[in-house]
Amino acid sequence: MRIGAIEAGGTKFVLAIGDEKGEIERRQEIPTEEPERTMAGVREFFSGEELDAIGVGSFGPIDLDRDSPTYGSITSTPKVKWQNYNLIEELKTYIDAPMGFDTDVNGAALGEAFFGSCRGLDSCLYMTIGTGIGAGAMESWKLIHGMLHPEMGHIILRKHKDDDFKGVCPFHGDCFEGLAAGPALEARTGMKGRDIPDDHKVFDILAYYVAQALVNYILILSPKRIVVGGGVMHRGHVLGMVRRYVRELLAGYIRTPELEDLDSYIVYPELGNDAGIKGAIALGLSALEDEQRKR
Amino acid sequence: MRIGAIEAGGTKFVLAIGDEKGEIERRQEIPTEEPERTMAGVREFFSGEELDAIGVGSFGPIDLDRDSPTYGSITSTPKVKWQNYNLIEELKTYIDAPMGFDTDVNGAALGEAFFGSCRGLDSCLYMTIGTGIGAGAMESWKLIHGMLHPEMGHIILRKHKDDDFKGVCPFHGDCFEGLAAGPALEARTGMKGRDIPDDHKVFDILAYYVAQALVNYILILSPKRIVVGGGVMHRGHVLGMVRRYVRELLAGYIRTPELEDLDSYIVYPELGNDAGIKGAIALGLSALEDEQRKR
Ligand SMILES: Nc1ncnc2c1ncn2[C@@H]1O[C@H](COP(=O)(O)OP(=O)(O)O)[C@@H](O)[C@H]1O
Ligand SMILES: Nc1ncnc2c1ncn2[C@@H]1O[C@H](COP(=O)(O)OP(=O)(O)O)[C@@H](O)[C@H]1O
Ligand SMILES: [Zn+2]
Ligand SMILES: [Zn+2]
Repeated sequence: MRIGAIEAGGTKFVLAIGDEKGEIERRQEIPTEEPERTMAGVREFFSGEELDAIGVGSFGPIDLDRDSPTYGSITSTPKVKWQNYNLIEELKTYIDAPMGFDTDVNGAALGEAFFGSCRGLDSCLYMTIGTGIGAGAMESWKLIHGMLHPEMGHIILRKHKDDDFKGVCPFHGDCFEGLAAGPALEARTGMKGRDIPDDHKVFDILAYYVAQALVNYILILSPKRIVVGGGVMHRGHVLGMVRRYVRELLAGYIRTPELEDLDSYIVYPELGNDAGIKGAIALGLSALEDEQRKR
Repeated sequence: MRIGAIEAGGTKFVLAIGDEKGEIERRQEIPTEEPERTMAGVREFFSGEELDAIGVGSFGPIDLDRDSPTYGSITSTPKVKWQNYNLIEELKTYIDAPMGFDTDVNGAALGEAFFGSCRGLDSCLYMTIGTGIGAGAMESWKLIHGMLHPEMGHIILRKHKDDDFKGVCPFHGDCFEGLAAGPALEARTGMKGRDIPDDHKVFDILAYYVAQALVNYILILSPKRIVVGGGVMHRGHVLGMVRRYVRELLAGYIRTPELEDLDSYIVYPELGNDAGIKGAIALGLSALEDEQRKR
C-alpha cells in the first residue's frame, strides 16, 4: 500500500510516501514559504505517484468541519499569506485518493496509536508540552473532534500552593499552557529551558500541573494509555514526578489494571522526530478505512 | 420496532417496551430488592414479548469491558447482595436479542441525544448534579468509554476565591462533586437544598464550579451541546449564572457558532423523569445498530 503524507508545519513541510506499517519509502523537507511556492513543491514531490490515500497533519487553526464550505483550509493563522488558504482543495486538483486532514497534534496522536507507543490499543491520549501544549485523543480508532477539535492545553487548573506566577497565555493568563509550557518555565526562571537545573523547584510545579491535567483527562476521557512528549518533557526526571502526583491526586478512586501500573500507563512517545510525518501516514490510512467502510 | 428497556436504579427498577422514536408502549416499576426477587419481576415483565433489542442503564459501578469474564455485572456496590451480580448474563438466559448495557448516566446521555435536547447532533455531553455528579459524552453516535467509563464528576477545579469549604468527597475532599453536589451545598449551608434561598452566595460558588467543569469538558471533548440536569439544577437562576461564567472563563479562546449562543449550547434535559428509561431504550437501539453493522 502506498500512502502519501504531508506534515504541514509553520517552518517546514515534511513530505513522504509510506506504507500501512508506517515505513517510509521516500521523504523530503521543504521550507514553509508562500502557499503557492510551497504547494508547488508538494505537487512536484507527488507527481506521477500512485497513492492509495494521503494524510495531512497541519499547523492551525484549521477548518475540519466536512460540512463547511471552507473545509480543508487554514483559518486565522498569524502567517498572513496562509490565512484562509485551502490546502485540501489544492491537493484535490491533482490527487484522486481518500484524503485525511487533521491538526498536527491529532495526527501525532493517531501515529502513536497506529505505529508507536499505543499500538494495539483502541483508545489513547497524546500530549505534547513545548512552546505550547496540545493534545489529541483517540477512542474506538477515531480521533475525537466534536464541535471543533480539543484544545486541552488550555484547561483551568488549581494553582500549586507555592506558585504565584500569573501565567503567559494571551487568552487566559494562568491556564495549563500559560503555567506549564516552555515559555512559562522560561519566564518564571529567567533561563532558557535547557539551562534550568534539574533541582529547580519549577519542575515540582510543572509536574503538579501536568499531573493535574492528566488526572482530569483520565476522569473525562478514560484513555487506555497516555503519551507525553515535547521539548519540556525531555527533562528525564519530570515524568516520574508526574506519575507520583497522578497517583496522589487520583487517590485510589478509579481502579483499573492500567492505573495499577503507571510506568506503562504514562509513557514517552516512540516515534520521536517522525511523530508528525508518521501521524500524517496514519491520517491517510484512517481516511482510506473510512472510504472502504462506506462502500 | 420493539425495544425492551431497563432502568436499574438503587431504589427501583423501571421496565418498559418502547420503539425507535422513544415512545413507550408499556411500563412498570418494581422496587430494588434482592437480585433474585427483582430479576424475577423483570423476567415476568418481558415474558412472551418479542423484542428487537434491549437496553439496560444501571447503577454502578459496573463491568463494561466486553472482553472481561464478568462483563455485565455490577461490581463493588455498597448494596451487598448486588455485588458481583451479573445482570446481563441473567437476561441472556431468556432474551435472545442485541443487548445494550451501560451506566445510568451514559444511558441518559444517549437518551437526550436520540430523543431529547440533542436530537440530530452527533456529539453531546450530559451532566447531572444531584446527590452526586455524573456525566456521559457521546461522539459520532457512540458513548465514550475508553479504559472504563468517564468519572467526570470528580475532576479537580480551582477553588472559588471566597470558598474555604473542605469538600465532602470521601476520596478527594474538594473535587467537583465534593464541592458542588447537593450534599456539599447542604453541608455548607446547614440547610436542605430546596430551602436555601435564591440569593444565598453558595449559588455563585456553585455556578463558578459548574462553569469551570463545563469549560474543561469543552476544551477536552468539544461537545456540540451540553445538557445539565439533576436536583440541584432545578434552581432556575443557576443556569444563567453558569453560562455567564462559562463565557468569562473561555475568554474568547474558542470561536464556534455554537459558543456564540450559549443559551442554545448549555441547556436543560428534555426527557425529565423519563431520562433513565428512554436512555435504556436508546442503549437498546444502539446495540441493535452495532449488531446490524457487524453483519
Ligand atoms: N531540555 C529542556 N528542558 C526544559 N525545557 C526545554 C528543553 N528543551 C526545550 N525546552 C522547552 O521546550 C520548548 C520547545 O518545545 P518543542 O516541543 O521542542 O518545540 P515546539 O513546541 O515548538 O514544537 C521551548 O519553549 C523550551 O523552553
Ligand atoms: N430545589 C433544590 N435546590 C437545591 N438543591 C436541591 C433541590 N432539590 C434537590 N436538591 C439537591 O439535589 C439532590 C438530589 O438530586 P436528584 O438529582 O434529585 O437525585 P439523585 O442524584 O439522588 O438521583 C439532593 O442532595 C438535594 O440537596
Ligand atoms: Zn490559555
Ligand atoms: Zn471526588
